[in-house]
Amino acid sequence: MSAETSGVSLPTPRAHLTSKRTRAALIVQNRFIAGAREFLSSDGFTELLPPTIGPVTDPGARGAKQVDIDYYGHRFKLMTSGILYKQASLLAFEKIFHVAPNVRLEPLETAVTHRHLAEFHQLDVEIANGSREEAMDVAERLTKHCVEHVLATAQAELEELGRDLEQLKQVLSAPYGRTSHTQAVANLQARGHAQDAHAEIDWQGEEVISQTAEQPFFITGYPKGSRGFYDKECPEEPGVLRNFDLIFPGGFGEMMSGSERESDYRNLVARIRETGENPAKYEWYLTLAREGIPSSAGFGLGIERFTRFLGGLDAVWQASAYPKLPGLARP
Amino acid sequence: MSAETSGVSLPTPRAHLTSKRTRAALIVQNRFIAGAREFLSSDGFTELLPPTIGPVTDPGARGAKQVDIDYYGHRFKLMTSGILYKQASLLAFEKIFHVAPNVRLEPLETAVTHRHLAEFHQLDVEIANGSREEAMDVAERLTKHCVEHVLATAQAELEELGRDLEQLKQVLSAPYGRTSHTQAVANLQARGHAQDAHAEIDWQGEEVISQTAEQPFFITGYPKGSRGFYDKECPEEPGVLRNFDLIFPGGFGEMMSGSERESDYRNLVARIRETGENPAKYEWYLTLAREGIPSSAGFGLGIERFTRFLGGLDAVWQASAYPKLPGLARP
Repeated sequence: MSAETSGVSLPTPRAHLTSKRTRAALIVQNRFIAGAREFLSSDGFTELLPPTIGPVTDPGARGAKQVDIDYYGHRFKLMTSGILYKQASLLAFEKIFHVAPNVRLEPLETAVTHRHLAEFHQLDVEIANGSREEAMDVAERLTKHCVEHVLATAQAELEELGRDLEQLKQVLSAPYGRTSHTQAVANLQARGHAQDAHAEIDWQGEEVISQTAEQPFFITGYPKGSRGFYDKECPEEPGVLRNFDLIFPGGFGEMMSGSERESDYRNLVARIRETGENPAKYEWYLTLAREGIPSSAGFGLGIERFTRFLGGLDAVWQASAYPKLPGLARP
Repeated sequence: MSAETSGVSLPTPRAHLTSKRTRAALIVQNRFIAGAREFLSSDGFTELLPPTIGPVTDPGARGAKQVDIDYYGHRFKLMTSGILYKQASLLAFEKIFHVAPNVRLEPLETAVTHRHLAEFHQLDVEIANGSREEAMDVAERLTKHCVEHVLATAQAELEELGRDLEQLKQVLSAPYGRTSHTQAVANLQARGHAQDAHAEIDWQGEEVISQTAEQPFFITGYPKGSRGFYDKECPEEPGVLRNFDLIFPGGFGEMMSGSERESDYRNLVARIRETGENPAKYEWYLTLAREGIPSSAGFGLGIERFTRFLGGLDAVWQASAYPKLPGLARP
């Protein structure tokens, strides 16, 4: 199946750019990012410009392919995420964030999920000496602040989009829930969804979970093997990672992945080897880790996904001026 | 000559990231960008997230090579600049800006100029129905606002960097000068620099001009052939473009290139043909132009270059957490 034959169609660039709905969605996105900058800056975070290319990138991109480039005769990659750089940058600042472009060649079948783009942006946050709990706390306060900021500054645009404001305000009304990956798998299996207990929750499963949720909630403790080598393993529960996803209700699904990070050189080398990769690939990163990088926790919030939620949009491509649906060659 | 043998050396990532000077430079950059957002937002500009890849990119990158990628079997490019997207986005908003990453494989010999990076960022501004004069006016007010904002918000960092504050304040004291490309060439030739009157001012010439200047100044009217097809030709002076560069004194050199844009479909096709390129490459852009895009003017301000000026840094690589000097394979 190619995206061209999958039934997905996008408006022409002109129809998309001149649509009132696109304009409203991009304003909502703009206000959301402004709100995030306001929140993070006042919370002591420093914004850095992230690199877009490098010798290696995040290998934990769940089925998506990395993009190679020829960089003066060296094989470089486009960033699938800035995680390795986030850890390194904590040598300069204790709390950092990026508004980072990422490119992941997602499988063609994801063109129809309403939740995948091959080019997207993440609000990437990292906290030196932070715990998973601290990262989840920042994530909850940050997303609530952004909802409030958009409600306060983009009223006309939310109206243009026909956004159900009560659904939006509901996010603010209670603490986000918590459930373990084990429990989430059991719930899915009880509903008849064939979810593998040792794997990532598939996007169909995530949709089911999201559709039946009342409030945003965190899923914690994904199994090792389902995520990147930099997600720290629980010392007390081998095979379980000290990580989390943030799921939004109403079918909007996963907004964010985060974790406490592995920063110990030997553990990193062992974890890279376990994934079948050669640690030599990660030379610059492992050199820093051998000499010491801070332990940390952090997350990446999908900017187009969260814009989709804020605006109540049908699909994530509506939150991009130049949407790149997997497989479609578009500007 | 390779960059490795050109005498350029960078500190290790650890030495760079843990340096007080790096930290100060990145804070100065952070405040500069915050000041730019403040200025542009209050002036009615909407910030958009720019694409980093696409079917085509700006061909006017003066000797630098574009980076190809394989995008689902299609040949795509990394953005060398977002100019084509800036023109298109004016269909959605009348005044826009991006903080945009760009990748240009600059010639190896530029590794020693103190002014080139293969990966850098631009503050990209575009104004629908704007004139060159209007763009230069915004450019002057914007850069002055950023100088003021950094002076007000990064005092400790400027001190850490040993910045000569009088030199910084001098920018604020008078209107920026204006000179034509013709006059700049004559001045260079009078100083014994062999500058071709029909070409871009070479970086050595730009350095001479910058070293002897007292104030920032614009050079206007570069010859056709030295810049991209999207810079509008003066109707009254064929062969001369309605464009400009902004040069800063003290050897900091070119900070910005801008122009009034060509938006007429037939003229664009003719201009693309004149450069020897096939207009079919630019299909999505020319389709929009054929159906009508706004006339406009705008510019791109080099973020690492302007940070270098603000901080009084020796070289532009000091304004990046992960500097990519042309030819050097670094994170």
